[in-house]
Amino acid sequence: MEQRKLHANGPLCSRIICGAWRWHTISHEQLDRLVQTALDAGIRSFDHADVYGDHSNEELFGQVLRRNPGLRKGMQLITKCGVKFPSTRRPSTRVKHYDTSSKHIIWSVENSLKMLNTDVLDLLLIHRPDPLMDPHEVAEALSSLRSDGKLLHAGVSNFTISQFRMLQSYLSFPLVTNQIEISLSRLDPFFNGDLDFLMEQRVSPMAWSPLGGGKTISADEREVFQMASKYNGTYSQLSLAWIMKHPSTIFPVIGTTKPERIIEAAGSFDIQIDRQDWFGILKWVTGKDVA
Amino acid sequence: MEQRKLHANGPLCSRIICGAWRWHTISHEQLDRLVQTALDAGIRSFDHADVYGDHSNEELFGQVLRRNPGLRKGMQLITKCGVKFPSTRRPSTRVKHYDTSSKHIIWSVENSLKMLNTDVLDLLLIHRPDPLMDPHEVAEALSSLRSDGKLLHAGVSNFTISQFRMLQSYLSFPLVTNQIEISLSRLDPFFNGDLDFLMEQRVSPMAWSPLGGGKTISADEREVFQMASKYNGTYSQLSLAWIMKHPSTIFPVIGTTKPERIIEAAGSFDIQIDRQDWFGILKWVTGKDVA
Amino acid sequence: MEQRKLHANGPLCSRIICGAWRWHTISHEQLDRLVQTALDAGIRSFDHADVYGDHSNEELFGQVLRRNPGLRKGMQLITKCGVKFPSTRRPSTRVKHYDTSSKHIIWSVENSLKMLNTDVLDLLLIHRPDPLMDPHEVAEALSSLRSDGKLLHAGVSNFTISQFRMLQSYLSFPLVTNQIEISLSRLDPFFNGDLDFLMEQRVSPMAWSPLGGGKTISADEREVFQMASKYNGTYSQLSLAWIMKHPSTIFPVIGTTKPERIIEAAGSFDIQIDRQDWFGILKWVTGKDVA
Repeated sequence: MEQRKLHANGPLCSRIICGAWRWHTISHEQLDRLVQTALDAGIRSFDHADVYGDHSNEELFGQVLRRNPGLRKGMQLITKCGVKFPSTRRPSTRVKHYDTSSKHIIWSVENSLKMLNTDVLDLLLIHRPDPLMDPHEVAEALSSLRSDGKLLHAGVSNFTISQFRMLQSYLSFPLVTNQIEISLSRLDPFFNGDLDFLMEQRVSPMAWSPLGGGKTISADEREVFQMASKYNGTYSQLSLAWIMKHPSTIFPVIGTTKPERIIEAAGSFDIQIDRQDWFGILKWVTGKDVA
Repeated sequence: MEQRKLHANGPLCSRIICGAWRWHTISHEQLDRLVQTALDAGIRSFDHADVYGDHSNEELFGQVLRRNPGLRKGMQLITKCGVKFPSTRRPSTRVKHYDTSSKHIIWSVENSLKMLNTDVLDLLLIHRPDPLMDPHEVAEALSSLRSDGKLLHAGVSNFTISQFRMLQSYLSFPLVTNQIEISLSRLDPFFNGDLDFLMEQRVSPMAWSPLGGGKTISADEREVFQMASKYNGTYSQLSLAWIMKHPSTIFPVIGTTKPERIIEAAGSFDIQIDRQDWFGILKWVTGKDVA
Repeated sequence: MEQRKLHANGPLCSRIICGAWRWHTISHEQLDRLVQTALDAGIRSFDHADVYGDHSNEELFGQVLRRNPGLRKGMQLITKCGVKFPSTRRPSTRVKHYDTSSKHIIWSVENSLKMLNTDVLDLLLIHRPDPLMDPHEVAEALSSLRSDGKLLHAGVSNFTISQFRMLQSYLSFPLVTNQIEISLSRLDPFFNGDLDFLMEQRVSPMAWSPLGGGKTISADEREVFQMASKYNGTYSQLSLAWIMKHPSTIFPVIGTTKPERIIEAAGSFDIQIDRQDWFGILKWVTGKDVA
């Protein structure tokens, strides 16, 4: 598995990233095994958020690190902040909203460090573009966390181009990624400028739901399964390999609770789809030739 | 009432601005009283356009200044140019169109100075994005008006991001605002990049129709009136305070002919809406939670 | 006919450009006459693509140059590459796709030089925005062709703003044009930022299908024909003059096989549409006044 920087001055991550958002549904033993399987497959970057599992998944992962103290130094920890929703664990929240105030960002990172049982985050992402985001506050919070050694790098998630440009213009260090939804079920970023813009910025995207959330594609699938078999891969592997062929160097974030799915995903990295087949798959999804 | 710069090198304006577009419907005495009420409330910036009141409102305001010679030095005069429509007062215009030729901009500003009975404009806005706008001509006209001391600052109105960027790239001084429609009835600028872009440019927007043109919002209003009462304000005050909470520092332009509405609007500046309530109001307008 | 640079460091082209895409439908004698007619009218720039006429039109034009050896030095040759579609002439292509790999760009330019019977291209355009475009590969190919003296200038066609910005950011020389569809039947570029952006970049657009592909406009045409007669022109001339009035300095690419149509198009350059009539024609096409 390739280890590659998200940005020239960003963190070295594994090209496929493990997402933690479903991990509250499995036992401690299963989680230990899942994490070890990922590491064995060269998947060393783990993507969290403060809110995953109703604010519980960071802590579950922190317990893995407590039970297995040698693991932390061989991995990258990514988490997110800025989303607040009503929950018994967050009784002061009355309505779903975003909070990118300096105070909340700092509180949230310090809480994530405690939950994850670590001293430093490799990467923090602002989870959603907050219409009330004051870039001076974000800059202040991120700079302070970086000087305190609690955070190495910063990025964003689900940001539009204009929001990324705006926030970047207030920072003295680069945003190293934008984690957005990219899959054969969501092709927009290939055509709406999102990936072009990140390439212009020399920033690699991360893809959430890179398998389209498991949605079945309704067209006749025989053709694409034949294609998968031509490449000696599964449909999932072909889907990931298709995304990873894009020159923006997309890092898919796979969210699974099954070790065998991790091994399957890791295998997709070795599939090199030929240019014509890439366009053939695009045609199969869109139902038409390119212009 | 806060007095604040639209841009680091722009004019100091009152955070709430008085719009003149309905002022041909009241008497001279009423207009004198309206202007004095605004000034007493700390609203010192007045927004005109050559075409308001079928090309008559600048002159009506100029008569206020003639009757009250001390007022000019304590206020900022903003006007616009570039729109032409058929009117008995403009017999050579056959079809509604825009004219941003150097010749017309200079003629229009000189005419506005005469009508407004003043020697200098604090701010001129290009009223609409003219598809035939030649940026060399605009640059030439604005530079010449500035060197002649007839104009202190320039900005635009209703411009898209690409139009703003294009025109700015031909100027040696900053466009200090983009006056666009922003209100609870027009939320687009919060999400389409318009406000992000102005923040990236360090330019404050002005909002026209900040109360949505008086449109009644069709959803159940009990909730929002309860919110207004929580903040000891009216629905209008809450609406203005909601807009003004945005970190782009929006300057609402209120268009009224009633002194009591000016006093009411000025009061909105003191309402500090809490972050959760801001998102609660957004949800009330859009009918859904943020993502 | 005006000869004008597409960009300060770009090629000098005739303001109206002759497009070769239909030229496989006429005889060698007709083609010789067509090319001579264009040159006599001051139309010295010829727009090709590797794929026009199912990959045959470049060769037909090369035969004109072989039969008339003096012509090459008084003209500009423009061609395109990057589109591949299934054809008996390209048996290895299974599905329509784009190929902007370094290898293909270089192969395609060398093939175009051979077909066109010339040593150097004045301008190469990347024909379509390839989602798999690796800007490093494009930069490498274009730089190498330029150092080898095979290519003088580079540009793009049908690119969005974000794609143009992205590719430009990887090049050490300017993209000198974006050839896009612009006509009275396709007004989008006047309002979607495409032309604003090119003006910001100091790059002139070329317009393909500047007469709207010959589509009949369905509204009552009496008005516009009256307008044409006011300007002593035909409807086609008025349409081209309308496009050419835009301050971005659009270079229309006319695709015709008839000498008389070339002469007619050349005549459009002398029509200066008045500002109000320009907006009158816009209103006639859109059915409404500007805002």
